[in-house]
Amino acid sequence: MLILMKQNPTKEQVDGVIAKIKSMGYSAHLIPGENDVAIGITGNQGAVSADEFTLLPGVKETIPVTKPYKLAGRAFKSSDTSFTVGGATFGPGHFVVIGGPCAVESEDQTVRIARAVKAGGASMLRGGAYKPRSNPYSFRGMGVDGLKILATASKETGLPVITEALDMESLEKVYEYADVIQIGTRNMQNFSLLDAVGKLDKPVMLKRGMSATIEEWLQAAEYILSGGNSKLILCERGVRSFDTNTRNLVDLGGVLAVRQLSHLPVCVDPSHGTGKRHMVVPMSRAALALGANSVIIDVHDRPKEALCDGPQAILPEEFADLVKVLRLLAAPLGMHVSGS
Amino acid sequence: MLILMKQNPTKEQVDGVIAKIKSMGYSAHLIPGENDVAIGITGNQGAVSADEFTLLPGVKETIPVTKPYKLAGRAFKSSDTSFTVGGATFGPGHFVVIGGPCAVESEDQTVRIARAVKAGGASMLRGGAYKPRSNPYSFRGMGVDGLKILATASKETGLPVITEALDMESLEKVYEYADVIQIGTRNMQNFSLLDAVGKLDKPVMLKRGMSATIEEWLQAAEYILSGGNSKLILCERGVRSFDTNTRNLVDLGGVLAVRQLSHLPVCVDPSHGTGKRHMVVPMSRAALALGANSVIIDVHDRPKEALCDGPQAILPEEFADLVKVLRLLAAPLGMHVSGS
Amino acid sequence: MLILMKQNPTKEQVDGVIAKIKSMGYSAHLIPGENDVAIGITGNQGAVSADEFTLLPGVKETIPVTKPYKLAGRAFKSSDTSFTVGGATFGPGHFVVIGGPCAVESEDQTVRIARAVKAGGASMLRGGAYKPRSNPYSFRGMGVDGLKILATASKETGLPVITEALDMESLEKVYEYADVIQIGTRNMQNFSLLDAVGKLDKPVMLKRGMSATIEEWLQAAEYILSGGNSKLILCERGVRSFDTNTRNLVDLGGVLAVRQLSHLPVCVDPSHGTGKRHMVVPMSRAALALGANSVIIDVHDRPKEALCDGPQAILPEEFADLVKVLRLLAAPLGMHVSGS
Amino acid sequence: MLILMKQNPTKEQVDGVIAKIKSMGYSAHLIPGENDVAIGITGNQGAVSADEFTLLPGVKETIPVTKPYKLAGRAFKSSDTSFTVGGATFGPGHFVVIGGPCAVESEDQTVRIARAVKAGGASMLRGGAYKPRSNPYSFRGMGVDGLKILATASKETGLPVITEALDMESLEKVYEYADVIQIGTRNMQNFSLLDAVGKLDKPVMLKRGMSATIEEWLQAAEYILSGGNSKLILCERGVRSFDTNTRNLVDLGGVLAVRQLSHLPVCVDPSHGTGKRHMVVPMSRAALALGANSVIIDVHDRPKEALCDGPQAILPEEFADLVKVLRLLAAPLGMHVSGS
Repeated sequence: MLILMKQNPTKEQVDGVIAKIKSMGYSAHLIPGENDVAIGITGNQGAVSADEFTLLPGVKETIPVTKPYKLAGRAFKSSDTSFTVGGATFGPGHFVVIGGPCAVESEDQTVRIARAVKAGGASMLRGGAYKPRSNPYSFRGMGVDGLKILATASKETGLPVITEALDMESLEKVYEYADVIQIGTRNMQNFSLLDAVGKLDKPVMLKRGMSATIEEWLQAAEYILSGGNSKLILCERGVRSFDTNTRNLVDLGGVLAVRQLSHLPVCVDPSHGTGKRHMVVPMSRAALALGANSVIIDVHDRPKEALCDGPQAILPEEFADLVKVLRLLAAPLGMHVSGS
Repeated sequence: MLILMKQNPTKEQVDGVIAKIKSMGYSAHLIPGENDVAIGITGNQGAVSADEFTLLPGVKETIPVTKPYKLAGRAFKSSDTSFTVGGATFGPGHFVVIGGPCAVESEDQTVRIARAVKAGGASMLRGGAYKPRSNPYSFRGMGVDGLKILATASKETGLPVITEALDMESLEKVYEYADVIQIGTRNMQNFSLLDAVGKLDKPVMLKRGMSATIEEWLQAAEYILSGGNSKLILCERGVRSFDTNTRNLVDLGGVLAVRQLSHLPVCVDPSHGTGKRHMVVPMSRAALALGANSVIIDVHDRPKEALCDGPQAILPEEFADLVKVLRLLAAPLGMHVSGS
Repeated sequence: MLILMKQNPTKEQVDGVIAKIKSMGYSAHLIPGENDVAIGITGNQGAVSADEFTLLPGVKETIPVTKPYKLAGRAFKSSDTSFTVGGATFGPGHFVVIGGPCAVESEDQTVRIARAVKAGGASMLRGGAYKPRSNPYSFRGMGVDGLKILATASKETGLPVITEALDMESLEKVYEYADVIQIGTRNMQNFSLLDAVGKLDKPVMLKRGMSATIEEWLQAAEYILSGGNSKLILCERGVRSFDTNTRNLVDLGGVLAVRQLSHLPVCVDPSHGTGKRHMVVPMSRAALALGANSVIIDVHDRPKEALCDGPQAILPEEFADLVKVLRLLAAPLGMHVSGS
Repeated sequence: MLILMKQNPTKEQVDGVIAKIKSMGYSAHLIPGENDVAIGITGNQGAVSADEFTLLPGVKETIPVTKPYKLAGRAFKSSDTSFTVGGATFGPGHFVVIGGPCAVESEDQTVRIARAVKAGGASMLRGGAYKPRSNPYSFRGMGVDGLKILATASKETGLPVITEALDMESLEKVYEYADVIQIGTRNMQNFSLLDAVGKLDKPVMLKRGMSATIEEWLQAAEYILSGGNSKLILCERGVRSFDTNTRNLVDLGGVLAVRQLSHLPVCVDPSHGTGKRHMVVPMSRAALALGANSVIIDVHDRPKEALCDGPQAILPEEFADLVKVLRLLAAPLGMHVSGS
């Protein structure tokens, strides 16, 4: 059960509810929101009686929660979440196109591509400074130097930046430089990292794990939300499959499932999702037509020289053409491509 | 290797090539096309020398084939296949919307829904008379009576009909009444059935198996094509997955993969693919935006009474609204929704 | 619900129960057993009251069935099924080792290998005369000539024969020559074929579909059992997976699941399940130690010349060594390797 | 390529090889072993000529490596790795049975169960002090207090202890108290954590990721090995699947694949792998018969009260009976159950 407090409750009111919960032998979870305070109850077997709480001072209402996630679900918040990062709105009626290189390789490369995606209609810049690599001998990214390059590219173009944090150490640096902190597929269940970004005041993009169920994904989101960080974007990036014609299997049905169960905005990554350049443009169109809130796309002007994932990067001119088409498709759906 | 004969070759020329193949210890497969004749060579280990054939009378060219499918691949035919069934064109520039009940339940129900989907913009009627059911005690369809009802509904509305054949017995009947013969998921590797429809002169829709790879799907297509039937539509209907929020996982990346490897048109089944009513409309939009050639949709005006798959059927008014949106989305992509 | 009649009920008693069921608006399914007669009720929404039936003449008891399979489940029959084919017992306390070539290639090859597996300790001979092949240009088996060769090999060695039927046409022939009729993976949901073998009086081995759930597998079994054929062996042969190091993923946990839910004996196919020669022997040992009832193994004395699946065949001497080890492992488990 | 130095090379010899590698524009990776020093080359496109190195002072031989893992593969070390932890030998001819509670709940509970598994024949104690939980509101373990309890239980029974580290913070503590450090499924690609345990001098057990391929698993192992820690045990714990009858799908074929490709010992976790109590005993027998080197089993004497994964824990008496059977099965396979 979730107990929603009236706006701006007093400390006494909150403490009163918590004391009541503890007296019943359960655990209380204080969940600070922007204006609201909610208190989650866990440790109970079966339903908890609402009557015990509705009459306590400061309590607005109680919400029974049968799902393993509370704050991420529509039971807690029925309307779509919407927030803006540097001019890009993640929420209903908007479609955010994020573009940039898979990895930051040099200032020249990153600024060059950042200008190209800005000109092509992107409203956010992507680029990895810390790269999770299956192989220990692969290029693992430029680290802090890469973050500084992203900051330069951001300043040059006015685009906000999203980049990945891999662990506590890189998170500290990424927090300093990025506008949105990305948590990657392999870290979707790195619970310490989720706890840590949950306590930060910067938006987070949480990629779905390689074979995570929708329930696991939303529970991972719950880690972040229950820490107090409500600016969260989910990102579908393809799940593991038996067929080798695509790198992963983009699960657009999963996007619909998560949009129904949760109020959080959802981005699609057609680049890592398919792993094939020729699929990126049509899959991006499909993501918009489906009703996703954003796409994040690998763009490189010299894909053969890319240090990471060259075969899935599209060219800046393909990117610009794609954004033009996305604008045409957005109109009849009552959507607007952010930044245009 | 595939040997392509010049147009209208003489019997002597064809026999000459076949004799040559046999003299080398290989098998020859005569593949009759509409205007062309091709001869496939199998039984060879490694490459066959083209020189042996290019100088034989009547030979136009030889095509090396490294894929396990020949006729289904773009090596054999690089341009997209296109054909028309009762006004609906499966091929580039067109998008065919097929609608109707999952199962034929009665003449009243079928004619009523057929009229509704016709009014809503469908250009083909779907409806199962023979139903493959996981459970032996489930409703298995009305059989020949169902086919007769479909014929009536077709006459009333002018819509061509697609319906499934399950085995040799039902195939004979379906061939008599249907405009397009559907081979279902569970029969994708029912090779006797594939051989049989390959010899017929009616178009076929071949659904992808529950966990078939793209290569297996195209080899199943090859069974049909190599029998001489070139009017073949592939249909993606969702693959098996680990998540239970959707019935299956619609593999739109797989559609892109098959479109690149093969010249055959591809339909998407968002109804069986997702199994959830609320996903059918957005997934249909995504299929069009992606570049698929068709969608096939379960429509029922009284879904709670449906004998089969009610939870995934959309209402006639939702169907009509969907077709309107599909027309708006088709325009900027240079496509045209058939029948509109 | 399932209504179990007393032994040797009169026709009037059976008809009385069926009439009662129909009067309630449901369907009745007469299920003839060896000594028992059961009547299944379908078409009901929710539970049917047992009281309506327990007092009817000839009724022994009523069994509520919540699973979609009735006859295949332990609710209907709690003790393990056991039957013997040519000296090989499929049932508790026994372990049947089946060996032979993947495909019948010639009389010499088949008789030679049959003698070798007999000498090595097999108690049944396998060999395909009709081969389901993903590719239309692959060797599809010798057909009736292959069946005749199997009959010869059986006569020479005294081993009963198991071989696959692909469709109605081959089933007629296989029924004539084989001791056990195999239904392959790709036909697990070929419902017409299941209906047909359900009406025959020869034992059947039903392989699990490529990505069939346990429930789908048991419902496919139900098709056969409800036709009246109760001599049924299930066979796990590996499910589709994301890793390419094995051809399929042998699901021994699935064997345990099906053994708990059903009374039917279960065989494991380590050859098709792994697709790798070096895995066949250890996986066979694991199958026995797990508690499976049988293994079916590809054996070839010249695997490089095999027309089908050579890379997974083990040599006759490896087969003989394996059987020796299986006997040693069977003893402490209270099992006996059939034929030894 | 891997350059193997002669035993006890001088610093000059090693520096000479590294300088040569750098002069060619590649990266050198010094890999310190117990007695040997190897130097890996990365950054090369295509093969590197061995001739450049074989004549350098101190070089024993060069090993071409085409796999993405070097130290984990049999190219680097063909014979099986073997090492002993507190009397339990992970290596050929031995089978280590690890038992204990899923989570440490109290000193009484842990010591009680530790004594029971010791009496039953275990040679190592398992127990989680830090628990990775899908849900943020679940019991996350007792932390350092739990580690202290494990130390007490170890002292009482003489059993070495294996327990999981989740992140840098818990790793520091786990290193202090545990004999073997466990890296769990969700952290198989937590590369910072892998780097960290690679630098420690305590044995590590690396569980396979939820849907990790064999190649990804071995590359994760490579992270640890390339840090200098060669006492590594791999652990198969079931992969994600489409069937819900088991929690995961135990991939014994994957165990065979990894045993062929790598020299590292492999443990099987039948408890988390199946998630069902009734499957644990037969799956453990299968693991031994297959040729795995160890099993790790959840044991609880009051499973209904367990704070974590009660439904998969077996009782102490079932555990003792299992070990007895494992001893009987080990003998004919030339194996010995450690501790017995």
